[in-house]
Amino acid sequence: MPRYVLRIEYDGAPFVGWQRQPAGLSVQQAVEDAAAHLAGGGAITAAAAGRTDAGVHAEAQVVQIDLAREIDPGTLRDALNFHLRPNPVSVLAAGVAAEGFHVRFSAIGRAYRYRVLDRRSPPALDRGRVWHVTRPLDAAAMHAAAQVLLGRHDFSSFRAASCQASGPVRTVERLDVTRVGEEIVVAAAARSFLHHQVRNMVGTLKRVGEGEWDADDIARILAAADRRQAGQTAPPEGLTLTAVRYPDGACPV
Amino acid sequence: MPRYVLRIEYDGAPFVGWQRQPAGLSVQQAVEDAAAHLAGGGAITAAAAGRTDAGVHAEAQVVQIDLAREIDPGTLRDALNFHLRPNPVSVLAAGVAAEGFHVRFSAIGRAYRYRVLDRRSPPALDRGRVWHVTRPLDAAAMHAAAQVLLGRHDFSSFRAASCQASGPVRTVERLDVTRVGEEIVVAAAARSFLHHQVRNMVGTLKRVGEGEWDADDIARILAAADRRQAGQTAPPEGLTLTAVRYPDGACPV
Repeated sequence: MPRYVLRIEYDGAPFVGWQRQPAGLSVQQAVEDAAAHLAGGGAITAAAAGRTDAGVHAEAQVVQIDLAREIDPGTLRDALNFHLRPNPVSVLAAGVAAEGFHVRFSAIGRAYRYRVLDRRSPPALDRGRVWHVTRPLDAAAMHAAAQVLLGRHDFSSFRAASCQASGPVRTVERLDVTRVGEEIVVAAAARSFLHHQVRNMVGTLKRVGEGEWDADDIARILAAADRRQAGQTAPPEGLTLTAVRYPDGACPV
Repeated sequence: MPRYVLRIEYDGAPFVGWQRQPAGLSVQQAVEDAAAHLAGGGAITAAAAGRTDAGVHAEAQVVQIDLAREIDPGTLRDALNFHLRPNPVSVLAAGVAAEGFHVRFSAIGRAYRYRVLDRRSPPALDRGRVWHVTRPLDAAAMHAAAQVLLGRHDFSSFRAASCQASGPVRTVERLDVTRVGEEIVVAAAARSFLHHQVRNMVGTLKRVGEGEWDADDIARILAAADRRQAGQTAPPEGLTLTAVRYPDGACPV
């Protein structure tokens, strides 16, 4: 039974998130339903490298499906796109996995971008793609404070209560905050993140940008290992999964 | 009666275009309805620098409204944004016009961007913002051919039948075609354009990008002054009004 690997792009707005839920359309279901058209009977299960929440977007989510039949990867990509059409999900590339490859367990890095629109007027063109913050933010202060979070730490202060990971320790490899015109862009990378970790870090760094907290406060909050010490969870629509990393040559897409 | 000038951003998707139509919501109506809340009775008429078609977006449309009362421009911007809220229209800046200023008649330049997504897979994140073209396009050939259109010409070959301008002569100041990853971006500037001129130029340059036509064909089509000679009208959703130019100091926003 060949395993096919897909690189997909989606707008998270209309979905309840990657994962199937009792109610509402998930990206997983959209992909599985499209794949079922090609499977000739029998349910298909799709797995993803990162289980994005409701409203979170992806530029390059990596997904796998096992199909009973062999199919040319280019044909698979086009056929899935045909069946996905009503939904804002697009298969950018498809390939065949080597034995033992798993999109989630073989992944060695995830990268996210978080966009804040920092201006008085609400977004029109970027509605649903940014967090609109009207107070002027100091991006340089945010970046300096973000560097405190780099490396291996207990991230309990930035972990959702709903997080199902076995432990709170993660290693943040990159957390860059830059201003691009009216936008504050946060680029985050780690082997993996806790549930809501990126959004909780962004919500906390916003308080730094507003001048309420500084790098010392971030160090104190991190050391407390207490979710109540940190800032709010930034809204999902500003977040995009931008890349999933695998050992060289392991991922076919 | 003070004249207020607004710089506004909008997503063209839900609108029938800038101008009021018998049926459907126009950007003009959305702005006028929002302004009516501040006018204390009496209809408001809004005029725009460029009357964008249905589906066409704006990053920096310039609009004027005459109000019977004086109001601080910052307050006007915020109040209009409050009343515009359900619609994807945002007032970025507001100011008071000098005597004799008119957003349309005082303008000396309009700039547009047209985005083509040139790849096999359909857009998910940029749906409604790009023209999806699956054949690989040669951006360098498109750019070279576009230069034939620079300067003062009879643009009848690129003019919509519905165009209400008094004549077909226009001066194209800039028509740059560049590739940015999977995108082909066309940047166009002129004092003013005929109806559908940018979209008709883009639809024609696409044929150059596909290798069907070259710069000589563009020269022939231009000289023919016959709409039937040129290519298709590129779809509206790829087009954005990016800037309106005025004499130095004339425009308050």
